[in-house]
Amino acid sequence: MKAAIFVKPGKMEMTEIDKPTIETPDDAIIRVVRASVCGSDLWWFRGLTPRDPNTQAGHEAIGVVEEVGQDVTNVHPGDFVIVPFTNGCGHCAACRAGFDGNCLNHQSGASSYQAEYVRYPSANWGLVKVPGKPEDYTDDMLNSLVTLADVMATGYHAAFTAEVKPGSSVVVMGDGAVGLCGVIAAKLMGAKQIIAMSRHEDRQKLALEFGATDIVAERGDEAVDHVMTITDHGADAVLECVGTEQSVDTAVKVGRPGAVVGRVGIPQNPNMNTNNLFWNNTGLRGGIAAVTTYDRATLLDAVLSGKIQPGKVFTQRFTLDQIQEAYDAMDQRKAIKSLLVFD
Amino acid sequence: MKAAIFVKPGKMEMTEIDKPTIETPDDAIIRVVRASVCGSDLWWFRGLTPRDPNTQAGHEAIGVVEEVGQDVTNVHPGDFVIVPFTNGCGHCAACRAGFDGNCLNHQSGASSYQAEYVRYPSANWGLVKVPGKPEDYTDDMLNSLVTLADVMATGYHAAFTAEVKPGSSVVVMGDGAVGLCGVIAAKLMGAKQIIAMSRHEDRQKLALEFGATDIVAERGDEAVDHVMTITDHGADAVLECVGTEQSVDTAVKVGRPGAVVGRVGIPQNPNMNTNNLFWNNTGLRGGIAAVTTYDRATLLDAVLSGKIQPGKVFTQRFTLDQIQEAYDAMDQRKAIKSLLVFD
Repeated sequence: MKAAIFVKPGKMEMTEIDKPTIETPDDAIIRVVRASVCGSDLWWFRGLTPRDPNTQAGHEAIGVVEEVGQDVTNVHPGDFVIVPFTNGCGHCAACRAGFDGNCLNHQSGASSYQAEYVRYPSANWGLVKVPGKPEDYTDDMLNSLVTLADVMATGYHAAFTAEVKPGSSVVVMGDGAVGLCGVIAAKLMGAKQIIAMSRHEDRQKLALEFGATDIVAERGDEAVDHVMTITDHGADAVLECVGTEQSVDTAVKVGRPGAVVGRVGIPQNPNMNTNNLFWNNTGLRGGIAAVTTYDRATLLDAVLSGKIQPGKVFTQRFTLDQIQEAYDAMDQRKAIKSLLVFD
Repeated sequence: MKAAIFVKPGKMEMTEIDKPTIETPDDAIIRVVRASVCGSDLWWFRGLTPRDPNTQAGHEAIGVVEEVGQDVTNVHPGDFVIVPFTNGCGHCAACRAGFDGNCLNHQSGASSYQAEYVRYPSANWGLVKVPGKPEDYTDDMLNSLVTLADVMATGYHAAFTAEVKPGSSVVVMGDGAVGLCGVIAAKLMGAKQIIAMSRHEDRQKLALEFGATDIVAERGDEAVDHVMTITDHGADAVLECVGTEQSVDTAVKVGRPGAVVGRVGIPQNPNMNTNNLFWNNTGLRGGIAAVTTYDRATLLDAVLSGKIQPGKVFTQRFTLDQIQEAYDAMDQRKAIKSLLVFD
């Protein structure tokens, strides 16, 4: 089968490899219909985090189940599914509490998703079934469904852990695809004021389309000052969708006393002075999204009903043969997010 | 009037000073009926944090209003009140959000409470009226009311910010008066399992009386292992009522994925590696308690109805003349908490 391979920093390649096979009774093999490139893929693409050369890549896809292991009864060959980047068992303490991204029975070994076929462990509970067949959906709807494998669920996790409530004022740090999905999530949860921290015109425009009420283009202390002038001493909730030290620092400062920062940006520097948190009663939550939980509870319905259109974050589309261009477009900020379309 | 004075580390003295007077229109002068020594007072009493010599001390009291400023209309001379250690205005963004311990209009200058009279700013909203007169209440009830000035509200804040829910499993770090009040709060919120981390027999006994279901006497990694064996991969909520680096570290490790640590122990070392938080989706919340909010919403009723009896944390009583003994008893762990009784 065709698969994208990371050769070395800055270099992706399409190659032919063996098709994955069922390895455990809870596996499924999925034929990929659409996949995408994630902002977190850029970390190793840019050489900022290590990754073994000549390894497969990708963790966002939708597809059709081709084969299942003997313990898989909830999905069947022919089912159209979202393939989450998480693999929840559905019955451990973490999954039961709604944190399936931290499944205590997590089985590693999922194959990567920028390929024609994927092996997905914990398939019985983890896969999210979509009604009908891919052919039943419009192009735009398929794109939105792809975001439910990671980026939309991750933006939702930021808003969920930041405890956004109806009427909340919300700051969203980061105007990448996750931050933009954070805007969608805040709006979906009934936020009244949504402040998008963005300095790129295309992303500002999309943020406003998704429900942002204010744009703040400054960074650091200037950004904090700006937020203070347009809120009542800070926002009720803050979504941290970047992960850099400056972004986390600003996130902690733009909340009112008692605000909660929900973060999904992978922390660049985990060491933090927590005095600002304690003395301002600012909460810090977040981590890995609970994709299956959020998709089933809220997001799939919101997409299928047309209430949210997160697929708009895909501003360029590619085939697997064009994998290098797909990464380059995001690396060079020519695309907000790159879509991969399969035949 | 008589007042307790901090002379130098290890040395308290009772002395005569001028009675406070109304200084702002939102002030009240309160005749103190009972006061107490707080665990946080031990930090400077032990010389671990700096404090100017020859300064007044104390921040927990109940009393009778003697005089009010011209803007004070909610309480009147003769009213029996709890005198919170916080001074909320009631109308700023922090107070409205239920975080009056972080009042944005905070007026400093409250006089200290281990004295016959107290000047309390933000009296109109901040003071908590108790029905009737002190003489109407039993000795035990008066003691419980004293805890509503700080320690019971602070224990409640730990449980509130840890997001304890009916049926939760809860770990309480710290067996001082705040930790014990944290046990009471967890029980009041409907926790099913309450694990008190305690190695002192008198405190273990009181924790069990207050609703603890399990005692863990180990510390550090052994404590984590013990909690893991008696919970399903960690507690749903963790109350951090100590503030030392070891306690905060343990608190972060004893929660299941997605658990929230509510901390009220003043952080000894604010620098924290937050990787454990992020990768386990563990939340970190907490800070200064919202005394007036909690007293009015829940705690005063719970005390007056006899549902909770936090006054039991006072295991020794003293007069103001015995202020040195009152501090010594807590410093030497002879008392869980020292009560100060006024004539």
